[in-house]
Amino acid sequence: MTLDELIDSVVAPDRDAAAAARDRHATLAKPPGSLGRLESLGGQLAAIAGRCPPPIPSAPSVVVAAGDHGVHAQGVSDWPQDVTTAMVATMASGRAAVNAIARTVGAAVTVVDVGTVSAAAAPEGAADRRIRSGTRDITRAPAMTESECRAAIEVGAETVRGLVAGGVDLVATGEVGISNTTASACLYVALAGLEPVDVVGRGANVDDARTPRKIEVVRAALDRHGPDRDPLGALASLGGLEHAALVGVMLAGAASRVPVVVDGVITGAAALLAVALCPTAAGYLVSAHVSAEPAGRVVADRLGRPALLDLELRLGEGTGALLAVPLIRSAAAVLAETATLDTIEF
Amino acid sequence: MTLDELIDSVVAPDRDAAAAARDRHATLAKPPGSLGRLESLGGQLAAIAGRCPPPIPSAPSVVVAAGDHGVHAQGVSDWPQDVTTAMVATMASGRAAVNAIARTVGAAVTVVDVGTVSAAAAPEGAADRRIRSGTRDITRAPAMTESECRAAIEVGAETVRGLVAGGVDLVATGEVGISNTTASACLYVALAGLEPVDVVGRGANVDDARTPRKIEVVRAALDRHGPDRDPLGALASLGGLEHAALVGVMLAGAASRVPVVVDGVITGAAALLAVALCPTAAGYLVSAHVSAEPAGRVVADRLGRPALLDLELRLGEGTGALLAVPLIRSAAAVLAETATLDTIEF
Repeated sequence: MTLDELIDSVVAPDRDAAAAARDRHATLAKPPGSLGRLESLGGQLAAIAGRCPPPIPSAPSVVVAAGDHGVHAQGVSDWPQDVTTAMVATMASGRAAVNAIARTVGAAVTVVDVGTVSAAAAPEGAADRRIRSGTRDITRAPAMTESECRAAIEVGAETVRGLVAGGVDLVATGEVGISNTTASACLYVALAGLEPVDVVGRGANVDDARTPRKIEVVRAALDRHGPDRDPLGALASLGGLEHAALVGVMLAGAASRVPVVVDGVITGAAALLAVALCPTAAGYLVSAHVSAEPAGRVVADRLGRPALLDLELRLGEGTGALLAVPLIRSAAAVLAETATLDTIEF
Repeated sequence: MTLDELIDSVVAPDRDAAAAARDRHATLAKPPGSLGRLESLGGQLAAIAGRCPPPIPSAPSVVVAAGDHGVHAQGVSDWPQDVTTAMVATMASGRAAVNAIARTVGAAVTVVDVGTVSAAAAPEGAADRRIRSGTRDITRAPAMTESECRAAIEVGAETVRGLVAGGVDLVATGEVGISNTTASACLYVALAGLEPVDVVGRGANVDDARTPRKIEVVRAALDRHGPDRDPLGALASLGGLEHAALVGVMLAGAASRVPVVVDGVITGAAALLAVALCPTAAGYLVSAHVSAEPAGRVVADRLGRPALLDLELRLGEGTGALLAVPLIRSAAAVLAETATLDTIEF
């Protein structure tokens, strides 16, 4: 499917279903409004599904997109680049934090290598869908060609279409990629008009010692590629292969009318791209949490809905997105299963 | 068991286990501190269980204590008093919001009528443990005698001892009782030294029209009973039978070394009482969420830990406490199941 076809396949969320959810909440056996943001979330879920009550997600999967970054050469990370591949293997074998959390919420973990630099085949349990061996160093060249960018988007979209065809009814987003907070910061500056100092944080580093260097590198990359770029241009110039795949994940999730849960600042950058490419997709995105990274507050603000959680997370992997899954289930379940006031006997 | 025996049976949480959890987090395959408040929660769970990693709760139950309030006669609620009994029946039949949420998180719902005014027997699915038919009107008399208060505490404690003996490994707290935000406000004023205007909100009312009347009634009750009271005296004079039962729930949960999850402002008032009676119990209490009621921020502040969620909930029933259960499971699972960095191959 081309990107244009993918974008065109996203239909507007159903406002009537959202209104029906609001009306239904007013009839339930509880004080009006007393479930706060669970009620507005229920309305969003109804709009996504096109019916009220919305279905209770029973088969969620987190899609973890993995990629490496040429900008790693600029000294932005405490970690060697091999850690990306090592974490792909750890997730594929069920031993990462994302797997532990996924098991507690009954979610599958789908790991897609869209561009690590590993010389070996992807491990069993991870899909080997590499478009290229990491991005180019964005301080010197575009991260990827537009063609590579479109191909990575399609990898994410195909992954989600396959999951939904297999019964998955909620997609959480996750990622792994050493140096990808630097690429994400570039995307925030390019897409959201923010300053590097406002969006660069320590990322996966152990402290803030490298943060000034990260800011320099973000400035250099933006100077190299210029300020005015369409979303696809910004993604190809500055982003990661995992950002591109996640754009595809989000658009295909929206096209499939399932809730798509945004995790932290990397998936958040992908969310801004997805919405810039396809504003209609915004209604399908649920902001899971406010990352402890400086850009953490940007995502929910730009998506127009407050995040559900604020637990000072900054791991990525999709961990925060998964923690929101039980809230989504509960928001749907309350609409589906709570007695209406008129059936209560006094 | 007497109250003194119950209090004496609470042992201090295990600081060594909490330290072991902190140390273990530093060895896991993720950036140090990157799971934020999930990491501190993991430390608390280790301290509660006395081992690291702590067990992942697999059999939670919410205990919903129900009671009526003589102060209802003072016009503090939009709802007839019969609603308490109607909601007990709704919960007992699995049709309240708390049941819907409990099913999504795999929790049982244990409903204990400790003092509704219903003339009928408690419905099937609810335990009939009424100490008296509602409390007395606290603007005119003590809510209950000290003997009744101790009996209600023991009902809650017995309930939890029975649940734990049956395998329950996490206790969430909930309540239902028309006018119980008014009684709770009195307890906040008495125990936390706050002013009525700072802790009185609309509660289950549809708007704030009755809030000034609630403030007057709280003042009248406090004038009637005087300012200086020990916790048990405050509870007996001003509280509800469900507050008393919840104190027993919390102390017995602590004595059983299981996590006890505090819900909103009614269970929060019970938590302040439990901790005033037994400071050691504080380590076993997990603040689930910041209620949208004015007193919402008091509870976590007084318990010394930030609440996990802030979703503008103000329903009670234990709904917010249940929403925190998946976070608790995840905090434990991450400690138990994430690979350590030294086992990762680069």
